[in-house]
Amino acid sequence: MKLASLKHGRDGKLVVVSRDLTRAIEATQVAPTLQAALDDWPRAAPRLAEVAERLEAGLLPSFRFREHDCASPLPRAYQWADGSAYVNHVALVRKARGVEMPPSFWSDPLIYQGGSDGFAGPRDPIPYLDEKFGLDLEAEVAVVTDDVPLGLGAEAARARIALVMLANDVTLRGLTASELAKGFGFFQSKPASAFSPVAVTPDELGAAWDGARLSLPLLSFVDEAPLGRPNAGVDMTFDFGRLIAHAARTRALCAGSIIGSGTVSNRAADGGPGRPVAEGGVGYSCLAEQRVVESLGGGAARTRFLQPGDRIRIEMRDAAGHSIFGAIEQEVVASRAGQ
Amino acid sequence: MKLASLKHGRDGKLVVVSRDLTRAIEATQVAPTLQAALDDWPRAAPRLAEVAERLEAGLLPSFRFREHDCASPLPRAYQWADGSAYVNHVALVRKARGVEMPPSFWSDPLIYQGGSDGFAGPRDPIPYLDEKFGLDLEAEVAVVTDDVPLGLGAEAARARIALVMLANDVTLRGLTASELAKGFGFFQSKPASAFSPVAVTPDELGAAWDGARLSLPLLSFVDEAPLGRPNAGVDMTFDFGRLIAHAARTRALCAGSIIGSGTVSNRAADGGPGRPVAEGGVGYSCLAEQRVVESLGGGAARTRFLQPGDRIRIEMRDAAGHSIFGAIEQEVVASRAGQ
Repeated sequence: MKLASLKHGRDGKLVVVSRDLTRAIEATQVAPTLQAALDDWPRAAPRLAEVAERLEAGLLPSFRFREHDCASPLPRAYQWADGSAYVNHVALVRKARGVEMPPSFWSDPLIYQGGSDGFAGPRDPIPYLDEKFGLDLEAEVAVVTDDVPLGLGAEAARARIALVMLANDVTLRGLTASELAKGFGFFQSKPASAFSPVAVTPDELGAAWDGARLSLPLLSFVDEAPLGRPNAGVDMTFDFGRLIAHAARTRALCAGSIIGSGTVSNRAADGGPGRPVAEGGVGYSCLAEQRVVESLGGGAARTRFLQPGDRIRIEMRDAAGHSIFGAIEQEVVASRAGQ
Repeated sequence: MKLASLKHGRDGKLVVVSRDLTRAIEATQVAPTLQAALDDWPRAAPRLAEVAERLEAGLLPSFRFREHDCASPLPRAYQWADGSAYVNHVALVRKARGVEMPPSFWSDPLIYQGGSDGFAGPRDPIPYLDEKFGLDLEAEVAVVTDDVPLGLGAEAARARIALVMLANDVTLRGLTASELAKGFGFFQSKPASAFSPVAVTPDELGAAWDGARLSLPLLSFVDEAPLGRPNAGVDMTFDFGRLIAHAARTRALCAGSIIGSGTVSNRAADGGPGRPVAEGGVGYSCLAEQRVVESLGGGAARTRFLQPGDRIRIEMRDAAGHSIFGAIEQEVVASRAGQ
C-alpha cells in the first residue's frame, strides 16, 4: 500500500493513496496520523491495507490525490538517523579534500543523528540563507521502521522495515567541514530534510526490493537538467538491515524511526568515480560529488551550488516508468532569516 | 508550575505536581500529554498554571505523587540537542587525551544531535551491555522550548524556554573516541538519556534563574557517595539563549525541543580543574572527568566506570534544601542485548 500525510496541523492527516497516485482516501478511521498508525503498526497495517485494496477496486469513494497537498509522510519524527551507505561517495569526497579515509569505513557503517523535529514538505521551498553556506541537495532512499529492540541483528532488522520513501537531505556544504572537524556531527549544516509525497510498504516494490535494498535508478534533476540516475541497489556497502542493526546496537529504536541510506552513488564500470550524465554516465545524487569529480579531473569545480530560483526534483520510476513515491520538487527561495 | 508524565503508553499521562512534589492532579482536561500541551503552549500553559494554583490552594482533589511512577517529562521527543556549554569540561577531557582543543570552542558552541525517540524514565534501569563500553553518567540541566523560529537571536531565544529539568545523558566512554574520530557525532556512544521526574516553568526557580542559566549546585551521587555538586550557573560558557540560537541558526525548532547544557563542570578557585568532593572540591558530574583529573595528577585513573548493581542519583535543591525536580535514580542492570 501507499500512504501519505496531507498538510494539516503539525502531524498531517493520514491518507491511503492509489498505486497510480491519482486517488486517495482519508484513513483517519484507522489512525489520525502516520505516526499514530506506526505506534500501533501490527493492528493498523492490515486495516490500512484493506482500505488500499478497496480503493484499488473502486469500492470506496475517493478524492483526487495531489502531491502538492502533501507534507512529508512523517511531517516530524522521533528519529532521523541518516547513514552513509554508499562508501564510494564518502571516499570520493575525502579524496577531493585530500583526507585519507580510514579503511574501517568499509566495514563499520557511518550514521549521523539528524534533526527530525520538522521536515519540509515535498513541495516546500528550500530557504536560501547565505551564499557562503553552499546549498546542496542529497537524494537518498529512506525506510521507516516499526519498533526495533536493542541489539537486533541485521537479518532480523529487515522485518522491522515498515515503509520505504525518498529523501532530500538538504546540506550546507559551507558548514560541513567545520562541523566534521569538531567531531560532534552535523547540526547547522543540515537544515530541514524533505521526503517524497508517498511512503510505500516494501511489497509495493516487487522484485526491485530484496528485503534491505532497492534496486532502481534514483533520478535527480536541477532545473529540469538530469543530475543523476544511479541505481540505489548498486554499490550500497551497507544495506538497510545493517544500518538498522548499527543504530540499534546500544539502544532500542521507536516505531516511526527514519533510517536514511545517505547520498546514492555508483562507481563507473572501471571502478573509478561515475561520470556526469552529460557524458553518458549515471551522474550523481548531489552537486558536491559532481564538483569533486570535476576537480579530480584536474581544474576547478565548475558546477555551482544551488541559488535562489533553482528547482530540484527527486523521484524513482518502476519498470513501467510510473512514479512510485511521487516527486520531491523544491524551489530554492531567498530568506532573510538566519543571517 | 511543575509538570510530570506518569508512565502510560508511549507518551505518558500529563499531571500537574505540587511545588513540594507530594500531590498531583491529572491535567488531561487541558492536554493528554506534555507534547500535546507544548504543541499548543500559549493556550495550554495558562490553563495548566491555573490547575497548579488550585492544587497549591487545596481547592482540587489530588492524589499522592510518586516519582517512581514517572516517565521522563517527554518520554520521547522530536528533538534532543545536547550542548557542551561548560567548555572547561571539554578542555580537560581533551588535555587528558593529549589533543589540543581549538580556541574556537570558547566562542562557537558545540552541540550534538541526540537520539530522542525513547528516553528512559527517571527510575528506569540503565542497561549494562559490555565492560568495554565504559558506562558513565553525565548530569546536566536541560530546557524544553516552545516553537523557535529560524535565525532567532540569543536574547530573544530566552523567552522561548518553556520548561527546565535535569538530565542524565548516559554515555559509553569506550565508544566516544572512535565516534568523534569519524566526525559524524555520537550515536552508539549515547544510549537512552533520562530526565528528572518533574519539569518546571522558569518562574519556579526564582532568583536562581537569570533567564538563561540556573545558578544552583547540581548534585550527583554514585552508590550514595557524592560525586559532584558544581554550580550550574558557574563556568557555563554558553547560556541556554546562546545554545538555542546556535541550534536555530539554519532551521526552526519545533515546540518540545530539548536543549541540554552538557556535563556541568566548575573550575577550582585557582582556575585549574576542580577537586574531588572527597578532597573538599565541588567534584564532577561524570566519572570521566574525575578520571581525567586523577590521570592529570600523575598516575592512572582510579575511579572505575559504572558496573551492574551501581546506583546513580542526580538532583538539585533550592535554598531551603527542597528537591526542585525530584531525583533521577537509576540502577545499572546487566543486559544480554547488544553484545
